[in-house]
Amino acid sequence: MCNTIKQLLKTNTRLINKNIVVKGWVKHKRTNKLKTFVIINDGSTIKNLQIIIEKEDQYINIGIYLKIKGIIVLSKGNKQTIELLAKNIKIYGIFKYKDLQKTILQPKKHSYKKLREQSYLRFRTNFFSSIMRIRHNVSYLIHKYFHKNGFYYIHTPIITNYDTEGSSNLFQVTTLNLKTNDLQSDFFGENAYLTVSGQMHAEAAALGLRKIYTFGPAFRAEKSKTPRHLSEFWMVEPEIAFFNLKNNMFLAEELIKYIIKNILILSKDDIEILDNKNLIVNNLTKILNKEFKRISYTKVIKILIKNGYNIIWGQDINYEHEKFLVEIYFKYPIIIFNYPIDIKPFYMRKNKDKQTVAAMDIIFPKVGEIIGGSQREERYDILLSQIKYFKLNSTILEWYINTRRFSTVPHSGFGLGLDRLIQFITNSKNIKEVIPFPRSRNKIYT
Amino acid sequence: MCNTIKQLLKTNTRLINKNIVVKGWVKHKRTNKLKTFVIINDGSTIKNLQIIIEKEDQYINIGIYLKIKGIIVLSKGNKQTIELLAKNIKIYGIFKYKDLQKTILQPKKHSYKKLREQSYLRFRTNFFSSIMRIRHNVSYLIHKYFHKNGFYYIHTPIITNYDTEGSSNLFQVTTLNLKTNDLQSDFFGENAYLTVSGQMHAEAAALGLRKIYTFGPAFRAEKSKTPRHLSEFWMVEPEIAFFNLKNNMFLAEELIKYIIKNILILSKDDIEILDNKNLIVNNLTKILNKEFKRISYTKVIKILIKNGYNIIWGQDINYEHEKFLVEIYFKYPIIIFNYPIDIKPFYMRKNKDKQTVAAMDIIFPKVGEIIGGSQREERYDILLSQIKYFKLNSTILEWYINTRRFSTVPHSGFGLGLDRLIQFITNSKNIKEVIPFPRSRNKIYT
Repeated sequence: MCNTIKQLLKTNTRLINKNIVVKGWVKHKRTNKLKTFVIINDGSTIKNLQIIIEKEDQYINIGIYLKIKGIIVLSKGNKQTIELLAKNIKIYGIFKYKDLQKTILQPKKHSYKKLREQSYLRFRTNFFSSIMRIRHNVSYLIHKYFHKNGFYYIHTPIITNYDTEGSSNLFQVTTLNLKTNDLQSDFFGENAYLTVSGQMHAEAAALGLRKIYTFGPAFRAEKSKTPRHLSEFWMVEPEIAFFNLKNNMFLAEELIKYIIKNILILSKDDIEILDNKNLIVNNLTKILNKEFKRISYTKVIKILIKNGYNIIWGQDINYEHEKFLVEIYFKYPIIIFNYPIDIKPFYMRKNKDKQTVAAMDIIFPKVGEIIGGSQREERYDILLSQIKYFKLNSTILEWYINTRRFSTVPHSGFGLGLDRLIQFITNSKNIKEVIPFPRSRNKIYT
Repeated sequence: MCNTIKQLLKTNTRLINKNIVVKGWVKHKRTNKLKTFVIINDGSTIKNLQIIIEKEDQYINIGIYLKIKGIIVLSKGNKQTIELLAKNIKIYGIFKYKDLQKTILQPKKHSYKKLREQSYLRFRTNFFSSIMRIRHNVSYLIHKYFHKNGFYYIHTPIITNYDTEGSSNLFQVTTLNLKTNDLQSDFFGENAYLTVSGQMHAEAAALGLRKIYTFGPAFRAEKSKTPRHLSEFWMVEPEIAFFNLKNNMFLAEELIKYIIKNILILSKDDIEILDNKNLIVNNLTKILNKEFKRISYTKVIKILIKNGYNIIWGQDINYEHEKFLVEIYFKYPIIIFNYPIDIKPFYMRKNKDKQTVAAMDIIFPKVGEIIGGSQREERYDILLSQIKYFKLNSTILEWYINTRRFSTVPHSGFGLGLDRLIQFITNSKNIKEVIPFPRSRNKIYT
């Protein structure tokens, strides 16, 4: 019988006196005159299992993987209820203990930056394995939420020929020899880019399947380096037919609260070992208690001006403004809606005032914008005039325009930044701490 | 009360005499002297709802989205048990019926190729909406299977600096102006490519978390066009520490059978409307009944030679060979294992015979290879000598080599082609029929 440590600790005292095989690696070792005590972990849980070895083995050291056959006994210590009395040990991949000194496997506190520099070893640390298990649970909860609510998971394309957000921060995809290129002969026969959002394709899907969502990577070649941006990040984009901005806000809030409520239960053990665990639990619990504050862009501008910020109507709200609003003024997540036309993409629905569009952004403490969404412009004529107004390429957009040509309905959706959400949940200063192998300007982490 | 048609048909006769709001679009319309009968669908299910309208409305036509308030009544026809007596109808996005003639929304049988040329409208057809709901269920079942079995979902990077499979079919990712490029100033400061597989990063994760899986896009710039290849496809790659080739085969077979067993139940209605539905159900049921045949590469070569194929030991098995083996010889999925070293990537574990590696491919009828996997070479010295043997860049591979340097364990994993699996399940001739917006040489579908 071979189990993960997670399964084993769940079965607990019912295993006493049973023969068990356990596999994992050494996190800690101490020896007294009679016995050696080895703490092993296998990544299935943050919890460890203590192994008792009758005689010392010099090769058993921190970082070494072991396979141990033994008998489960009641623990004499008070840290754990069961431990394993080793009868037979197989040692994998011996290495010199001094080599460990150069790595993040050395048992001491390392800086997050140093951990990141050895991303491929980070998975073996308490900190990062917990982050990864939390990330798994968040991802699973998202799929579960949408599945039980009748949404279909759609794989929108990664390689596209259009810049949905109009940000010009595009990665080009090519098979040309970059030194002697000939654009005509490139793989797709036209310019191809990495997607910045699956939204436009998601809209087409929602107009056929009613409720859909995407869950996939997106890319922005932004040159600025901030602790909240990645060049490659994961996005979740629900899109729903017969859905207005109000419905959209409701869905977004319900989804976030569903995730947070359940992560507090599912990832309890992993949150326990994070820095400021009490603060984290408090922050997460607080989110659940109140409705997110809905406030129009125009009102936000008034508040900012009244509080001494140098901003006028029509300008974009930046991170400093967001911080003031959610951390000092409201002290709670807010949903800002109805933004000026000129600072939002062409596809958002024009409001009756002709000055604003039915956009909404959800702003969270510390991480800022966690969700951006809108009701989409479903009216054929207005969409065409918006494309003209923004001077966009209507030939390349023809398929998108056609989704409104053969009947269409009001529809809405949003993009949830998965990494940002996990950054918020784990209270991580840098978003690079929550994704396995971060990508940013001048750096491909391995 | 507004429900999807799926929810409505589930609640069924309990809704009789209740006031209901239904939204969807017109699939069919017929009028007699007294009434108009309109069939609507909303994408939530392949099933439709019949609406009875007291007087004709010329604007209500095929393709038009409607919002109908009315009362649920017992149906007089025998096709459905309930129908909706319309009291009030809102018509969205009117368009000229003759415009429909140019599109795949026109109610007649279209070729798959024509459907694909209007990918953005395909979601509104019976055929493709069913494929998408099946694709959703397959995806959800995969997440569910891994979650309940203690695997963690890892997001391996899409942008990489290495060609894992050594196939040279790489897409380069760049922010250079392709006409006047300067490689030094490119975004990442080094060559960057789209991933062909998340495996190497998945290995690093498994060595810390024991059981992990990936679920994401992968890319191959293969110039050949076949009905079984996409330039952008979705892959599921489990990777498990303390796992050998035998365990690996068991997991792969169990996963596939779990998906097929459950899809027959979950997607029953959608399979019903596919071409050759009886054949599909028979094929899927047959897969569940027997263990996949395990056979070594060496034995396969002997069978092929005996059956007149011009092949010698050391050559790769091609699609024609695979077809013969699974469709004519064994008439059942097979797992071919222990391939010659020279035709497989460097990271596969060398067998004792020094001629073969612990690889395995699962071959299915019609679609060919559906899974490719191996036990990985965990022995530091042998991995180094393999890298040398294949003349690979050991500097760029240093991080990967280091996953074996500080202890390591036997580990295995495989890649499941999600699109291929769905192609098999839905008995689709072309893989482009099972992904929303296919990408292939010279073509970015919209």
